[in-house]
Amino acid sequence: MRYLLTLKYLGTNFCGWQVQPNGPTVQAAVCSAALQIFGKKTDIVGCSRTDSGVHALGFCCHFDAQTEIPPEKIIDAFNNNLPEGISVVSCITVSDDFHARYSAKGKTYVYRIYNSRVPEPFEDGRAYWIKYALDLEKMQIAAKNFCGTYDFTAFCSAGSSVEDKVRTIYDCSVIKSGDIVEVTVSGNGFLYNMVRIIVGTLIDVGTGKIKPDDIKKIIESKDRSRAGSTKPAEGLYLKEVFY
Amino acid sequence: MRYLLTLKYLGTNFCGWQVQPNGPTVQAAVCSAALQIFGKKTDIVGCSRTDSGVHALGFCCHFDAQTEIPPEKIIDAFNNNLPEGISVVSCITVSDDFHARYSAKGKTYVYRIYNSRVPEPFEDGRAYWIKYALDLEKMQIAAKNFCGTYDFTAFCSAGSSVEDKVRTIYDCSVIKSGDIVEVTVSGNGFLYNMVRIIVGTLIDVGTGKIKPDDIKKIIESKDRSRAGSTKPAEGLYLKEVFY
Repeated sequence: MRYLLTLKYLGTNFCGWQVQPNGPTVQAAVCSAALQIFGKKTDIVGCSRTDSGVHALGFCCHFDAQTEIPPEKIIDAFNNNLPEGISVVSCITVSDDFHARYSAKGKTYVYRIYNSRVPEPFEDGRAYWIKYALDLEKMQIAAKNFCGTYDFTAFCSAGSSVEDKVRTIYDCSVIKSGDIVEVTVSGNGFLYNMVRIIVGTLIDVGTGKIKPDDIKKIIESKDRSRAGSTKPAEGLYLKEVFY
Repeated sequence: MRYLLTLKYLGTNFCGWQVQPNGPTVQAAVCSAALQIFGKKTDIVGCSRTDSGVHALGFCCHFDAQTEIPPEKIIDAFNNNLPEGISVVSCITVSDDFHARYSAKGKTYVYRIYNSRVPEPFEDGRAYWIKYALDLEKMQIAAKNFCGTYDFTAFCSAGSSVEDKVRTIYDCSVIKSGDIVEVTVSGNGFLYNMVRIIVGTLIDVGTGKIKPDDIKKIIESKDRSRAGSTKPAEGLYLKEVFY
């Protein structure tokens, strides 16, 4: 039977999702819990890689297991075997041809900015702190200019091996609640560091360095140097995966 | 000139407020920042001690300094010299007879409980996790029974050197928002571990182990063993000090 797990994790103490030799990863922790629960090595296939320090509110992964344990109890079994910082929030059975990565139709990311003169201890590692004022209205206008199907080469970090850089952004919005500015981006797929570069560009709009109308021109230029800087991982959350 | 600072801190990585040889404390960090700013050793007097792991949303402390720096700039100066996890949110001048501890008329503490079957990575170290269901209504009735002036010996940990254990609780309330249950307690003073024992007792009410009406009898008994257990520091926040 194939199972789909949805995870929540605080990325701060993990070197991202994918197993690697240099430090603890979320995938390694889930594999280790699965070994405890099912008594055998189990491949855990994630919906994407997340970078070191990136958080997840709804990361999805699948695995195959022969077990009598009902899905509801599998949730508890994982939570009893996972380290602090990771929890399983749901577990359902899926068809054998379901794939956490290839069946995904889209994803939503959220980037949290803490916008205040005074630093906020409770947001350290959970939001990117910006001291200076941001023009929210301009950021909101600029955000809409990311929606659509474009070649997003200008919003992809160097070193990406992906050839086709055309992606569709379904929605990009900016809202403010108290001192938190949240940028939400939904799309059918994302290039390397794409959300973090979109946020860097929107912040440049918020400070007046880039005009809202320039977004389309930057996309058309396919020139990474014309977009904003890549903002830190700490503010980024994989919110939801759509299947 | 005497100054009153209000601090916010995430207690997780500190061994409480007071300077001690065994680990980093909030007071030591504030003293060290003051040395950088004013160029001389400055006594920092806190409103109370907080235990290791306890958080603060509005901890108050005072100090004396001869400086030309206006209070608004003192806030920035501290925030530029304090480690991650502590920030200064306000700075005002006060009269020379003001004392952060002795001038305090009361304090409000909040205790955060995360109440869900599934653990919440984003609340680790910031709320006390309770898996089983709590009867909120009973807890709310019980909370009201703490209000008033009583000898709270039953709600004081052993080892306290305080002789007079009479304190006045102005308000004690329980509210639920999503999966977070917040217990708020305001009073003119608090005995050692008093809020954490009140919370332990309210949780016993929530699980049916203690009846709401038993609170008065437990107070009257002055018997620590009749109250609930002392709940962990991670859920406790010093919210406000009244002068």
